[in-house]
Amino acid sequence: MKRSGIITLMTDFGLADPYVAMMKGVILSINPRARLVDISHHIIAGSILQAAGVIQETFSFFPEGTVHVAVVDPGVGSDRRLIALEAGGHLFVGPDNGVFWPLIADYGENRVIHITERRYLLPHVTRTFHGRDVFAPIAAHLSLGVDPGQMGLEIKDTMELSLPKAHEREEMLHGQVVRVDNFGNLITNISHQELERFLKESKPFIHIGNLEIKDLNNIYSDVEKGEPLAFVNSSGMLEVAINLGRAADYVGIDPGEIVGAAVKVGRYE
Amino acid sequence: MKRSGIITLMTDFGLADPYVAMMKGVILSINPRARLVDISHHIIAGSILQAAGVIQETFSFFPEGTVHVAVVDPGVGSDRRLIALEAGGHLFVGPDNGVFWPLIADYGENRVIHITERRYLLPHVTRTFHGRDVFAPIAAHLSLGVDPGQMGLEIKDTMELSLPKAHEREEMLHGQVVRVDNFGNLITNISHQELERFLKESKPFIHIGNLEIKDLNNIYSDVEKGEPLAFVNSSGMLEVAINLGRAADYVGIDPGEIVGAAVKVGRYE
Amino acid sequence: MKRSGIITLMTDFGLADPYVAMMKGVILSINPRARLVDISHHIIAGSILQAAGVIQETFSFFPEGTVHVAVVDPGVGSDRRLIALEAGGHLFVGPDNGVFWPLIADYGENRVIHITERRYLLPHVTRTFHGRDVFAPIAAHLSLGVDPGQMGLEIKDTMELSLPKAHEREEMLHGQVVRVDNFGNLITNISHQELERFLKESKPFIHIGNLEIKDLNNIYSDVEKGEPLAFVNSSGMLEVAINLGRAADYVGIDPGEIVGAAVKVGRYE
Repeated sequence: MKRSGIITLMTDFGLADPYVAMMKGVILSINPRARLVDISHHIIAGSILQAAGVIQETFSFFPEGTVHVAVVDPGVGSDRRLIALEAGGHLFVGPDNGVFWPLIADYGENRVIHITERRYLLPHVTRTFHGRDVFAPIAAHLSLGVDPGQMGLEIKDTMELSLPKAHEREEMLHGQVVRVDNFGNLITNISHQELERFLKESKPFIHIGNLEIKDLNNIYSDVEKGEPLAFVNSSGMLEVAINLGRAADYVGIDPGEIVGAAVKVGRYE
Repeated sequence: MKRSGIITLMTDFGLADPYVAMMKGVILSINPRARLVDISHHIIAGSILQAAGVIQETFSFFPEGTVHVAVVDPGVGSDRRLIALEAGGHLFVGPDNGVFWPLIADYGENRVIHITERRYLLPHVTRTFHGRDVFAPIAAHLSLGVDPGQMGLEIKDTMELSLPKAHEREEMLHGQVVRVDNFGNLITNISHQELERFLKESKPFIHIGNLEIKDLNNIYSDVEKGEPLAFVNSSGMLEVAINLGRAADYVGIDPGEIVGAAVKVGRYE
Repeated sequence: MKRSGIITLMTDFGLADPYVAMMKGVILSINPRARLVDISHHIIAGSILQAAGVIQETFSFFPEGTVHVAVVDPGVGSDRRLIALEAGGHLFVGPDNGVFWPLIADYGENRVIHITERRYLLPHVTRTFHGRDVFAPIAAHLSLGVDPGQMGLEIKDTMELSLPKAHEREEMLHGQVVRVDNFGNLITNISHQELERFLKESKPFIHIGNLEIKDLNNIYSDVEKGEPLAFVNSSGMLEVAINLGRAADYVGIDPGEIVGAAVKVGRYE
């Protein structure tokens, strides 16, 4: 695979501490020509689930041959493995904790390497900052064209991630809010395919918390200011918003506590 | 116009979500050599007024031939137009919602193109994310040297923006706070030219909320710690601050609620 | 010294305002090939102490010949001097307010230049934004290979910084929390060398606020979820954390109010 020279970074480190900068310094020390792009450093601390969704949603907008680093790693320093994944024309580096599971599931033709070659890590590896000492140098070497196969042996037993899935029960489609975005919009795990399969010729009504929305709209300004709407968003998922308002505040969902917020879709003629 | 190869990005997307990264991925897929610089992604959600002020204040510090993308776009997906503006030796791309009006007003010699050529957009344009599907690819093509004139026809009826302007009434100069910065400093819409014209030989006294300040200072440390001061700031505008403190907290202005915060300037000998 | 072409930026400007972008625009106007990396723009406003610690901890992860700009500058516009420092194979630019003192103390072979040559600044220097008008252009020129000696005369009397130091008293090692990171972990000023010298063959017990921790651990997951632990962190300093929790919340330390938070280490067999 030809390399794009781009390395993306996703962590739960935030931007106040110098941790992300240290990773960038390490990368540029190995590959001075690497192009660095931040995906997000505000993943909910330790939320492998959120990180897995964000990288799955984002990576394909980058050129093929891009290296994506994911450091959401509550088990740092334990015996969890270091892996590199080749899938969909891209390379991914991170801990073997499920963060790349959706990609492995999506792309049958993939290759996962358990990285064990110490020469691709910093000479001194600390126990608590593998983002800097392990994942950054590996990403830099991958971006220079090193084949993941040179870094260790292929494995087939990567950690799986139990993803909340939408499902039908008692004539309703049940899903979950999986992310609250900057506008307070509620992004669900119900895909437009699932929605269409469930609805067939019917129209939907949608419940989230106290909000009840009839039918789907296309764009925010389809409804009056302050009115709720539901639509298939730019990533193909059902999303609930309030035009020029914050649905999250209305429903009482905090960006840090999205787990378990239920969405129910019913149908009528 | 020769291109600098730099593309700046200004949005109200925040940095937690992967939206800005998706835009960058799209840009780098089209122009792999583009240099990307963030102006701000923390514009108050939907505040065209704030976005218009920030881009006007900032663009000229970049080299000529830079492409500036502004995505503060509450009408996304509606029939508002997509425009490219050439003014002051720079290029600007965004929605026709007034965000570039101050630039159009400042630079008589300008050109506004209503972009309609679909080949400069992503093949699939969603209804709710034109930052990624429309503005990012247009910016990338402009940065490669495509002339805006190839993207559509010139228009003369761009959306205007009603800007709060300082004005004299009953021997007082009335203005507004238009931005609260990271230090809690209050940036007003009163320019040093307006101030000098109003004051002539007199000295000013300045009212914002409960603060009353006599005379102008030059730098923060001209006054004691905790004392308020007023000065012409680095962008040529009247600014009110508290040395080593937060004027915004004192006056009770929230960064998200700056609209209507009144400033009054009087004069004495 | 050969230049790496990289310029790092550390300020207390935050990322909402366009100030950092203006600095980047100025740099790229002078050196269009400069590689820009943000270290942090969320230094506590005016905290020279925090800024000094962050740059000391971070710079060496970048390639030699990198230029580091530090703009935490509560005395902007006063008669404090502008300095460039050459130390440890890197270049540093900022106000002479102590921010580089730890580096000067660490690297005996250093050179400090008091910058007075106006041709390396912007033509118009405002009184309140030296980050943009002074430090950005100086950094750009340094990154192009200009020798600091061309910018002014060497000085030996740079401003010193009074650093809180760990010390032994009544059989206890007394230190301070100097930073609270994104995970709420408490980073102290007790180095692993000081700790080892104090402990010799004994084991430590550690007090911070209401937390009492016996012995040192290696990694977060050495203790149960919600349990506190202490360890030598990836920068070689004693750190106190709660596995999958926020020690700062528990101890009642706010990231903005870290000064004076005491750490005490005792010993037992």
